[in-house]
Amino acid sequence: MKETQFKELDTSQRILLGPGPSMASPRVLRVMATPLIGHLDPQFLTIMDEEQQLLRQVFQTENQLTLAVPGTGSAGMEAALCNFVESGDSVLVIVIGYFGERLCEVVARYGAEVDRIELPWGEACDPQIIKKALQKKRYKLLALVHAETSTGVLQPAISEIASAAHTHGALLLLDAVTSLGGLPVEIDAWDVDIAYSGSQKCLSCPPGLAPITVGPRAREVLDKRLTPVANWYLDLKGLSKYWEPPHAYHHTSPISTHYALREGLRIAVEEGLEARFARHRKNAHLLWDGLEALNLPPLVPYDRRLTTLTTPQLPSGLDDAGQRKRLLEEYNIEIAGGFGQLAGKVWRIGLMGYSSRPENVLLLLAALREILE
Amino acid sequence: MKETQFKELDTSQRILLGPGPSMASPRVLRVMATPLIGHLDPQFLTIMDEEQQLLRQVFQTENQLTLAVPGTGSAGMEAALCNFVESGDSVLVIVIGYFGERLCEVVARYGAEVDRIELPWGEACDPQIIKKALQKKRYKLLALVHAETSTGVLQPAISEIASAAHTHGALLLLDAVTSLGGLPVEIDAWDVDIAYSGSQKCLSCPPGLAPITVGPRAREVLDKRLTPVANWYLDLKGLSKYWEPPHAYHHTSPISTHYALREGLRIAVEEGLEARFARHRKNAHLLWDGLEALNLPPLVPYDRRLTTLTTPQLPSGLDDAGQRKRLLEEYNIEIAGGFGQLAGKVWRIGLMGYSSRPENVLLLLAALREILE
Repeated sequence: MKETQFKELDTSQRILLGPGPSMASPRVLRVMATPLIGHLDPQFLTIMDEEQQLLRQVFQTENQLTLAVPGTGSAGMEAALCNFVESGDSVLVIVIGYFGERLCEVVARYGAEVDRIELPWGEACDPQIIKKALQKKRYKLLALVHAETSTGVLQPAISEIASAAHTHGALLLLDAVTSLGGLPVEIDAWDVDIAYSGSQKCLSCPPGLAPITVGPRAREVLDKRLTPVANWYLDLKGLSKYWEPPHAYHHTSPISTHYALREGLRIAVEEGLEARFARHRKNAHLLWDGLEALNLPPLVPYDRRLTTLTTPQLPSGLDDAGQRKRLLEEYNIEIAGGFGQLAGKVWRIGLMGYSSRPENVLLLLAALREILE
Repeated sequence: MKETQFKELDTSQRILLGPGPSMASPRVLRVMATPLIGHLDPQFLTIMDEEQQLLRQVFQTENQLTLAVPGTGSAGMEAALCNFVESGDSVLVIVIGYFGERLCEVVARYGAEVDRIELPWGEACDPQIIKKALQKKRYKLLALVHAETSTGVLQPAISEIASAAHTHGALLLLDAVTSLGGLPVEIDAWDVDIAYSGSQKCLSCPPGLAPITVGPRAREVLDKRLTPVANWYLDLKGLSKYWEPPHAYHHTSPISTHYALREGLRIAVEEGLEARFARHRKNAHLLWDGLEALNLPPLVPYDRRLTTLTTPQLPSGLDDAGQRKRLLEEYNIEIAGGFGQLAGKVWRIGLMGYSSRPENVLLLLAALREILE
C-alpha cells in the first residue's frame, strides 16, 4: 500500500453556527487534553456518578436510569428505540422533519410496525391529532421530536401529549437533541418516559456521547422484554450495570469525552438553566431581528420557533451553497443548508450553548450583509 | 431534584498498564484540545480521508472500505457482525477467552445460529480443529480473536485459517483490538475479510473510535444482504456514504476523537510498523524477565504469548484485588485482574502503544517488588 505521511493537524478557527456541533467552551476543550485514566478506575466511576447527577439536573428528572450512551446523538436515538421496541410492536411516530423520518426508519429496522402522523416540514403537530390516533389503535410507544433540527420547529404541549399517551397505554419517547441545555426539557414535570440528546448541541461538548434518561414506566417495559436487545453495544441493561454498582465491565468508555461532558454540564448548572434559556432567547431575538432586516425572515412562526436553531427563508435565485461556502471560506462561519423538503429554501442557523453569543450573531449578520449585497 | 455543583476535574496522573485504555502520547492529548470544526466541513472531510489512508497502512490493506466506526472497540465488534450476519445464518466462533464469548453473544442477538469451538482460557486454537469443523458444516462467517485480551494469547496461523475459511465458502472475521498497531496485522497478506480494532489500545488514542476494514468478499456479502442492517448507527452502507463521496450526512462524527486518531496513526506510521512491533517485543521481554524473577511467571507459553498484554500467574493466597489497589493508590499504576476462568489466577499487564516504554516496565517491577515483599 501507499506509504504516506501527513502534516500536523492544522484546522481553521471556525465560528460554528450550524445545527451542531456547536463551539466548545475553552474550559471544555482544556479538559479534553487531560491524560487518560482507566474506565474502571475509582476516580472515573466518580466522574460518571457526577455526570449522572448533573444530567438529572439538566433533564429535570429524578430518574435513576440517566446516563450517557457511548456514541453520538444518533446512538442516543438508537438506544432509546432498540431497548423498548421488539419485533411486532406497534409504534406511532410524529414526523414533522428529518429526525421524525429517522425515528421511523430505526423503529422499522427493529421489526416494529410503524404508523406515522406526518405534517409538512415547518409545522408542529396539534395534540388533538395525536389523541385521535391514540384512540384508534393501541401503541406501545409514541415517539416525537421536541426540537426538529431540520426545520427549526419546537413541538409544543409535550405534557399534554404525554398524558394522552399514558391514558392509552403508550410510552412517550422524546428526542431532545436540539433542546436539552438550551430550552426547557422537563422530563418529570411533563411525565416523559424516555428522552435522549447529544453532547454537541446546547451542551457544547464534542460529539461522542448521548445523554439518555428512562423513567419508571419505561424501565418496567425494559425489565419485561421477551427477547434480548438486538444491539449489544447499546443495551441499557449492560450499560446500567456499568454505570451503577456493581460497575461491571461493559465497554471501554470514551474517557476524554466524559471529561468534556462533565465539564459542559458543570458550566450549564453554574450558569443556571433559567439564565441559560434566557440567553438563548435573547441571542435568538437579536438574530431574528437582523434576519428580518436582511429580508431573510424565519420560516417558522414565532410561537413555535426554536431559539436554538433558526431557519431563515432564502430569496429565490440565491446561490445557497455558494453563499454558505463564502461564509465558511471568507469569514470562517459555518451555517448549514436546508435539506429534504426544505433544500434550497432555508438555511439552518444554530445558536446553541457556547455558540449562542451576541458577538457571533453580530458577526454573522455583518458577514451576511457583505455577501448578500 | 438535588442541585449539586462539582469541582474542577482533577484526576491523578496514572501509569496505564492494564488491558486498555493505554496512555495517550502528549501529541495526541494536545490535538484533543483543538477547537471543533463541523462534521461536513471540507477540512474535516480531508481529516477523515487522511485517517482512512493511515488506517490502510496500519491494517496493511488496500481495502477501500476502511474507516473508524463512531464508538469504542465493542462498537467495532458489533459493526463487524451486524453488517454481515442475518437472521438464520450459521456462524462459527473460536472461543479461547472472553472476547470470543462476546462474539457468540453478539452474533446470537442478530438471530444467527452460533457454533463454537471452545478451548480452555490460555490456549490458542489449532487450525486443524477449525478445518475439521469447516468440513462438517457450511458457515457464512468464521469469527475469531487475534489477540485475546482476557488471556494474553496470540492466535497464530491466521493466514492458514483464512484460507480454510475461503475454501469452505466462509468469510473470516478477525478481532484485532489488542493487536493493531502493536503486533503484525496483515489484512491483505493473510486474506482476512473483516477486521476491527479500538483506538485506545496499541494506537494509544482515547477510546471512542473503532477502526474497521472490509475486503471485497465481505463487501459483496454486504451488497447482497436481503434485509436492512438491524442497527442504523453502525450500518456500514450509511457510514461509508458519509466517509466516501457523496459525504452524505449520517451522524455527527466525534470530531475531537478523530483529531486524536489521526494523530495516533501519524505517530504509528512515523515510528514505522516494524520498529513499533520491535519496541513492543523488547519491552515485553523486559517485563517477562522481571516477572519471572518475581516468581510471577507468564501463564501463556512463549510461542503464543502476546507482547502487548501479559498474564502473570499469581501465587496462591495472594490478595489479588488488594495488591492492585495498592499499586493504583500508592504508585498510580493501573493493571487489571483476571476474569472469567482466570479470575484470581492471573493479572493482566498491558504494554501497548505509548504505554510500552522501558521506564514503565522498570517502575512496575520496582513497585511489585515493594508490595510483594
